[in-house]
Amino acid sequence: MADNKMVKQITSMDEDFAQWYTDIVKKADLADYSSVKGCMIIRPYAYAIWENIQKILDTRFKELGHENVYMPMFISESLLQKEKDHVAGFAPEVAWVTHGGSEKLTERLCVRPTSETLFCEHYANIISSWRDLPKLYNQWCSVVRWEKTTRPFLRTREFLWQEGHTMHATAEEARAETVQMLNVYADFHENDLAIPVIRGVKTPSDKFAGAEDTYAIEALMHDGKALQAGTSHYFGDGFARAFDITYTDKENKRQYPHQTSWGVTTRMIGGIIMTHGDDNGLVLPPAVAPIQVVIVPVQQHKEGVLEKAAEVAATLRAAGVRVKLDDSDNSPGWKFAEYEMKGVPLRLELGPRDIEGNQCVLVTRTGREKSFHSLDGIGETVIAKLEEVRVAMYNKALANREKHTYDCETIDQINAALAENGDGFVRALWCGEEACEDEVKAKTGVGSRCIPLNEKKHEGVCVCCGKPAHQLVVWGKAY
Amino acid sequence: MADNKMVKQITSMDEDFAQWYTDIVKKADLADYSSVKGCMIIRPYAYAIWENIQKILDTRFKELGHENVYMPMFISESLLQKEKDHVAGFAPEVAWVTHGGSEKLTERLCVRPTSETLFCEHYANIISSWRDLPKLYNQWCSVVRWEKTTRPFLRTREFLWQEGHTMHATAEEARAETVQMLNVYADFHENDLAIPVIRGVKTPSDKFAGAEDTYAIEALMHDGKALQAGTSHYFGDGFARAFDITYTDKENKRQYPHQTSWGVTTRMIGGIIMTHGDDNGLVLPPAVAPIQVVIVPVQQHKEGVLEKAAEVAATLRAAGVRVKLDDSDNSPGWKFAEYEMKGVPLRLELGPRDIEGNQCVLVTRTGREKSFHSLDGIGETVIAKLEEVRVAMYNKALANREKHTYDCETIDQINAALAENGDGFVRALWCGEEACEDEVKAKTGVGSRCIPLNEKKHEGVCVCCGKPAHQLVVWGKAY
Repeated sequence: MADNKMVKQITSMDEDFAQWYTDIVKKADLADYSSVKGCMIIRPYAYAIWENIQKILDTRFKELGHENVYMPMFISESLLQKEKDHVAGFAPEVAWVTHGGSEKLTERLCVRPTSETLFCEHYANIISSWRDLPKLYNQWCSVVRWEKTTRPFLRTREFLWQEGHTMHATAEEARAETVQMLNVYADFHENDLAIPVIRGVKTPSDKFAGAEDTYAIEALMHDGKALQAGTSHYFGDGFARAFDITYTDKENKRQYPHQTSWGVTTRMIGGIIMTHGDDNGLVLPPAVAPIQVVIVPVQQHKEGVLEKAAEVAATLRAAGVRVKLDDSDNSPGWKFAEYEMKGVPLRLELGPRDIEGNQCVLVTRTGREKSFHSLDGIGETVIAKLEEVRVAMYNKALANREKHTYDCETIDQINAALAENGDGFVRALWCGEEACEDEVKAKTGVGSRCIPLNEKKHEGVCVCCGKPAHQLVVWGKAY
Repeated sequence: MADNKMVKQITSMDEDFAQWYTDIVKKADLADYSSVKGCMIIRPYAYAIWENIQKILDTRFKELGHENVYMPMFISESLLQKEKDHVAGFAPEVAWVTHGGSEKLTERLCVRPTSETLFCEHYANIISSWRDLPKLYNQWCSVVRWEKTTRPFLRTREFLWQEGHTMHATAEEARAETVQMLNVYADFHENDLAIPVIRGVKTPSDKFAGAEDTYAIEALMHDGKALQAGTSHYFGDGFARAFDITYTDKENKRQYPHQTSWGVTTRMIGGIIMTHGDDNGLVLPPAVAPIQVVIVPVQQHKEGVLEKAAEVAATLRAAGVRVKLDDSDNSPGWKFAEYEMKGVPLRLELGPRDIEGNQCVLVTRTGREKSFHSLDGIGETVIAKLEEVRVAMYNKALANREKHTYDCETIDQINAALAENGDGFVRALWCGEEACEDEVKAKTGVGSRCIPLNEKKHEGVCVCCGKPAHQLVVWGKAY
């Protein structure tokens, strides 16, 4: 009996990008709303993407010597207040627990918005000698920030993330860790998520509360808006001093250790949707796709078709491919649309005639290119095809970013570029004054995203005040 | 330079079991306290045990068709109140969030103590037809229960767990799922954790809030106290009615689906400690030990020793064994004590003479038996030895349980058995009256743990009132 669900319609992305995004989230079964505003339900399909992200990153973190821990979800008000910049940044957006059962607590507890204070309290207990360093800890958990405006994955009051917190004997080591982890995030985005990113450092006004330097990777979404996709902070010894964390060095002198933290969140799923998706639905990078290949049998009631399809599925599974054989009674056309909506990178079609010719049809999600392939060595063929899809996804996203990156020397140029070509990254020099940063934003709508790393030295004038400037800033409208 | 840490002393378990437990938690680097009472820090060594537990269970859940999801951590007060037994059970022990940032919330939110209400709210949105069933969802997360008395792992205000929540077309299917998952837990305990368990159903007074039946596995700790190690609940259609979850069946009639939930927690780590530990420290079951074999080189500064040790480590790693080579400058004696404290199941010693003879020494953590083995085929040898350790651990735990299980027919017999042989499981018939259950507890200190499954039919009289009784109950003092 055929399923009577119709192919799901979604809003066109060019017509209304925000509505398109919401439609994808809903129709690709990624998330559902709960009755608590800003808190979403991550449905199995999206959670499987998150699990794949976790597996890849967790393996890399561990290869680099990091260990996972679990800290409490509650922070007492007095603990949160120990580092003054930190509390100033986070207190306005935390959820407060005031009662346990029917009793009023003697001190309010906040639900962690981030865990620097908890890690520092613990580090003060367990670090005493240079032998205890470095401490390379990471935690996978959920955190809460009481945001006013929320959107699934992009900005939710509760979200899932990992937060690395490390302590080092020297500033140099800690700085190297900060940059190393930024690079882990950047490589993960570029190689696994097929999302090109700019690696940069934030301007002082945009630093994490309590950090000396905040590094970030910035990606450009299909609509020309920027997404901060991961951050890595260097704290110096500020928290160590506030929490009295010291170690005795090899010369038996007391020293403050130097600290980092770094994190990525379920927001990355929003980034995947908005970088790669199209009017037919989600497009998932093969590395994190819960289903990498869907097998759609054609004329599946004919003798031998389902048996052969199952055989191919088993071959692909043995080759390490995540495969789903859809042998439901839905029509092939319905299945094509359904798995396009779900962003499955590759479709394998197999009918009686294909079987006769010992071949199958592969269709890529990205360009819908059809090609015929022998069933001999189908494992290697599919793996190679998935890699082609990944490269095509990356190149498409890169082309979109390049098309929407504008070198500008004046505020008028910025406005003209945005008006003519739409939102995007603006590259323009900045003198370093916060007032200019604010003025650019007020007059053009684009804010400073980051000062990109590894750029040649720049000589010129500030895009705003015209005074000498050496810092190139990438500006954009941000999610 | 040798580390100057001394071998860590712990209280003897026979002297003071509670203090012994606390010492192990601290000295084996399992947990640390945070400044919020009842909330613990799960340190890397314990978290690695938890990750191994997760990997094994998650794989089994998925093999049985379950999918992971993530629900919000907050439940609005009105949502919690939808099922009356449920709210009565949990409201007294939840943490309440009353403020977001500086604003008072219009409705209080509790931090989830368990997520039945959240799953039901979502199921009402996504279940409408028999085609949508069964729904087999699971979630790994942390939950909060505002306990008065807390102990690391055993009872903490926040703990980590998994909670399965499933919906089925029929009561039979849901009941089968409830028992299936109880058996998954039981098999995991017996085979992977080497902890013998009793599979049983709870008496009505001890059911989960809102459940029709609560099944549990009960383990006996080394001190003769019982630990409820996992539970599986059958809900009937009670929640479905309260949350208006319905589906149309194949005859197009509206029906209420039938529901289960089941969970195990970080408490299992407490169970491992108290089942297997001894006066030298922790003893870890190989399946979840972060380090299964520690290689301790002897006379490691002699030429070739460390090279050979590294080669053996690589061989073991390739065989799928989790191995650590400790080539630090601590003395072999210090290392022996350290890894015994940490409960590493197997120690491999390797010195110049061993290398000359192409052999090594294996020492089991359980009985400290030493044996010599050829380095040829060391992978298989170690794997076989780990299995020996597992069996020895299980048998030791089982022997302890058998030694401390007492068949009793009267309250006097119960008191005599406990006085003579110490705490343990009491097996005695019960008439089914709650008053008798309470009286047994008041007069002997042991409460009903469960009615074991798969027992022969019993004929006799109630251990308390002397009236005819057919139900065998296992009684004990519980953690």
